[in-house]
Amino acid sequence: MINYTIPKRDMMFVLFELLDYEQHLQTLSGPEALSRDVVEAIVDECGKFCENVIAPLNSSGDKEGCHWQDGVVTTPKGFKEAYQQYVAGGWPSMTHPVEYGGQGLPVSMETLVSDMVGAANWAWGMYPGLSHGAMHTLSMHGTDEQKSTYLTKLVAGEWTGTMCLTESHCGTDLGMLRTKAEPQGDCSYTISGSKIFISAGEHDLTENIVHIVLARIPGAPEGTKGISLFIVPKFLPDEAGAVGPRNAVSCASIEHKMGIHANATCVLNFDGAKGFLIGEPNRGLHYMFTFMNNARLGTAVQGLSHAQLGFQKSLSYAKERLQSRSLSGVKNPAGPADPIIVHPDVRRMLLTQKAMAEGGRMLAYSTALLVDKDACASDEDQRKEASELLALLTPIAKAFMTETGFECASLALQCFGGHGYIQEWGVEQNLRDSRIAMLYEGTTGIQALDLLGRKILMTQGESLKRFTKIIHKYCKSQEGNDQMAEFIEPLAAKNKEWGELTLHIGMKAMSNPDEVGAAAVDYLMYSGLVTFAYWWARAAEVALAKQDEAFYAAKLTTARFFYQRLLPRTLSHAAAMKTGVDGLLALDAEHFSFE
Amino acid sequence: MINYTIPKRDMMFVLFELLDYEQHLQTLSGPEALSRDVVEAIVDECGKFCENVIAPLNSSGDKEGCHWQDGVVTTPKGFKEAYQQYVAGGWPSMTHPVEYGGQGLPVSMETLVSDMVGAANWAWGMYPGLSHGAMHTLSMHGTDEQKSTYLTKLVAGEWTGTMCLTESHCGTDLGMLRTKAEPQGDCSYTISGSKIFISAGEHDLTENIVHIVLARIPGAPEGTKGISLFIVPKFLPDEAGAVGPRNAVSCASIEHKMGIHANATCVLNFDGAKGFLIGEPNRGLHYMFTFMNNARLGTAVQGLSHAQLGFQKSLSYAKERLQSRSLSGVKNPAGPADPIIVHPDVRRMLLTQKAMAEGGRMLAYSTALLVDKDACASDEDQRKEASELLALLTPIAKAFMTETGFECASLALQCFGGHGYIQEWGVEQNLRDSRIAMLYEGTTGIQALDLLGRKILMTQGESLKRFTKIIHKYCKSQEGNDQMAEFIEPLAAKNKEWGELTLHIGMKAMSNPDEVGAAAVDYLMYSGLVTFAYWWARAAEVALAKQDEAFYAAKLTTARFFYQRLLPRTLSHAAAMKTGVDGLLALDAEHFSFE
Repeated sequence: MINYTIPKRDMMFVLFELLDYEQHLQTLSGPEALSRDVVEAIVDECGKFCENVIAPLNSSGDKEGCHWQDGVVTTPKGFKEAYQQYVAGGWPSMTHPVEYGGQGLPVSMETLVSDMVGAANWAWGMYPGLSHGAMHTLSMHGTDEQKSTYLTKLVAGEWTGTMCLTESHCGTDLGMLRTKAEPQGDCSYTISGSKIFISAGEHDLTENIVHIVLARIPGAPEGTKGISLFIVPKFLPDEAGAVGPRNAVSCASIEHKMGIHANATCVLNFDGAKGFLIGEPNRGLHYMFTFMNNARLGTAVQGLSHAQLGFQKSLSYAKERLQSRSLSGVKNPAGPADPIIVHPDVRRMLLTQKAMAEGGRMLAYSTALLVDKDACASDEDQRKEASELLALLTPIAKAFMTETGFECASLALQCFGGHGYIQEWGVEQNLRDSRIAMLYEGTTGIQALDLLGRKILMTQGESLKRFTKIIHKYCKSQEGNDQMAEFIEPLAAKNKEWGELTLHIGMKAMSNPDEVGAAAVDYLMYSGLVTFAYWWARAAEVALAKQDEAFYAAKLTTARFFYQRLLPRTLSHAAAMKTGVDGLLALDAEHFSFE
Repeated sequence: MINYTIPKRDMMFVLFELLDYEQHLQTLSGPEALSRDVVEAIVDECGKFCENVIAPLNSSGDKEGCHWQDGVVTTPKGFKEAYQQYVAGGWPSMTHPVEYGGQGLPVSMETLVSDMVGAANWAWGMYPGLSHGAMHTLSMHGTDEQKSTYLTKLVAGEWTGTMCLTESHCGTDLGMLRTKAEPQGDCSYTISGSKIFISAGEHDLTENIVHIVLARIPGAPEGTKGISLFIVPKFLPDEAGAVGPRNAVSCASIEHKMGIHANATCVLNFDGAKGFLIGEPNRGLHYMFTFMNNARLGTAVQGLSHAQLGFQKSLSYAKERLQSRSLSGVKNPAGPADPIIVHPDVRRMLLTQKAMAEGGRMLAYSTALLVDKDACASDEDQRKEASELLALLTPIAKAFMTETGFECASLALQCFGGHGYIQEWGVEQNLRDSRIAMLYEGTTGIQALDLLGRKILMTQGESLKRFTKIIHKYCKSQEGNDQMAEFIEPLAAKNKEWGELTLHIGMKAMSNPDEVGAAAVDYLMYSGLVTFAYWWARAAEVALAKQDEAFYAAKLTTARFFYQRLLPRTLSHAAAMKTGVDGLLALDAEHFSFE
């Protein structure tokens, strides 16, 4: 088994050479402006935890899985001890408010941690990871009392949180949800219903779990406008804030899944459980969406994590595995065969992973800086700009990075030949684990509709223009830089075409809204490729100034690979999305198959 | 769980409306010329077995897996009984020589059976499936005595066979294999060594297993030219041909794999086992390759099987699952939401699966007819033509159909949203099972090198021209048929471009052989798309003559979908393959990553 090593040099490259993170932190009001030294120290510390504590539990956790018995869930061996170390290290509190025990660091630091924790052991990382959603929701919408009762415990890592949305008959379409919340007249509600797919919904890592639950108050409007949000703790806090009586919420079963075996995906039954309203009634979905964007960016990082882990494993194998000779002559005369990394097709697979993982890191980190700005840029215009860019880039990052994360995980397996199909190397687990990311927090199809329909067409393309203008300006700024021409010319052309395709589909959608759905996924993948192309051009620019060093030469080579081999995928996506909806709707549903 | 139903109408469409199977059988000398009625009766009978006996064991077999204890392998519950029914039905003997107990039907009938058995339960199907390789090898290269001793038992299904190639240090590069065969002076050899990844290498379905083993006789030339082929039975036959003493071959362990859990993938130790040479010494790899082509076509069918099964499951789910409303207005006013098949993106996913599964069936069956002709066309020119076309199309079918089979299995899962990730629906198993097909019998990269390097460039493109000429003639024959223009124009253009790309790469490869590896996989995927385009045009032609019926209208719609949405993938593959090798080899191996 080849273990995970944090890609520190790549992380620092993105933060400090590409994004000027120190400067960025200066512009925020609120979080402390960390120096590069401090950021590096934090990364080193977290890296040690990831490499030494949770990465070794990744495979054993997958094999052992979670156990359910009579409503009690036991996590795999070592998970609880790892969690205790994580809490002792203060990691849960890092980016949360100082007044509730947090360290008040900028939220972007969470993305760095997630990059490392996710690649080391995604299934483990989901236990503390899910808490962040609950914490952000409480921070933003909870009362002072709710914050001091629940947020303090979550920040300390003593309790964890969940987000309870899905029911068996509704996932995407939350307007249909049936869980009921009946007011008891004492500011509490009685919650009844059943939720499914609740990640970390029950476990043995902490003494209590705080469920954040969507439910419907009797008499509320139908559909999405009648949904409210509630706190439903597993154990009700006593007057001192400690764990008190058990609440009527129980874990009926855990799912048997393709991957992330070590994370408990729970069916939760609320049998008249006591719950407490968050914010105003019927605003639940609105509150949830503020948090959903963060969750989507978190899931984007999952794509990056699996691409990174698969890349490390397959690279290491490709350097060691001796098999056949290079077509252009023996490269390893001392050995019985050449290492397979000499074969151009193996390099194609490795470079695809490298370009996607490192491109994903650039997009994830740059988006994390927008999250910082959205939350606490000192300048109001900057804040608005960040918020709107974030709305545009979130579905792109989520869907494109998870789709390519899965693709890369499959390429990693392919580099191993038949050995990749065996559990031993961990690449088949990486592929299985990666597959969920295209589904939860909104499928690729849903992200694509959000991007093209809600974000772009509903703003008459304004939202897209905000980003294409940035790319346009960047291209202008590089005019006359001959060394950059190989990147800037195709980037400028694709950027222009992006706008044209949007207009083309927008026009068609005016006469038939189904045109949006027909184009959406190809449009999203196209958008992801252009977004990555922008970041790879930026990386190439940095690297060109320093290409004498091998590290920068490698960045430049990878940028070229991206432009030569991956960006051309835009050609097929553009052609496919232009064909429109008619071919898709021509068949009656009953004529899809015949016996 | 949505179960498998044989797609009989589609099968018959390909056989009798597209390929004129009855006419084809008339041209063969040897096998019986079956009437359509007889073919249908065989398909019906096999269909019943697949739907009622083995499909219900697909999920339970995956969950239970195989058990190994002290060298003994137990298959999942029901597998042995199903095998007995299969033998009782005479299925193992169908296409094998009458003189050894076979029914002497044309080999193409095996492809029909495999289409159904594979989709119903691929892991089960591998037990009898692997025997065919052993039987063909013995038929072609065994002595009369070997045939009467082993072939008779295999044809009867009383014993099964394996093919033992891979060792832990060599898979692709068989020249490195170390298993030794020492002559004993009595026409037997003593076989010593260890083989891995032996599918169906040990099991409890039959009383004996006949291993066909590659090994090296001391003093033989190094590399691939010193490998011989041996029969090594698990139990040595006694004088009466019945099971005699146990041979020194044992199953050391079975692999824990990503999928096909119900098939035992074995490590086999040969500890001085008695073996019998097949054919001449040092010709083993040559014999193996005659059989490998069949095995590759069999694996191509695996891609089709998983595409078909996933399509059936996701189609059924998409018609039933109610979630959200159509963007163009409510389609199911009586229900709380519309079935998800109303959404254009769900249709895109379903039609992709349909186009790939049905396109794969056309390619697989048409290739099966070439296998028939290769073996027993009465006309020598026809035989040669078939043999050469087969050599070209085999790597295309194997790699393209398994790559798209995996893609389709993933799209099927995606149609289920989060539910697809749960074991319950069987789509995650279908995805896991499909992943092996891109690896065994030669990875996609190996098929691609075989296609572009060995088959095409080594024949100066002659081998490709043989097929592009067929497409060219077909396009010519449709000139003036306005209804067909939407297919013929792009097909003719792609067919021309195929030749041009080949020339382009061929020229570059003359100065650097690594150019072949750099272009190979994109070239193969391009070739697969054009090949499918040819068959979809042919299908459209048949359908156009009869489009008043829903079945034919659906074929036409699917052909259009293929041309509009899938064929444009050639654009990216063409662009990528033209970029050449330099970008792939620019990095030193040690500069792929930095810590």
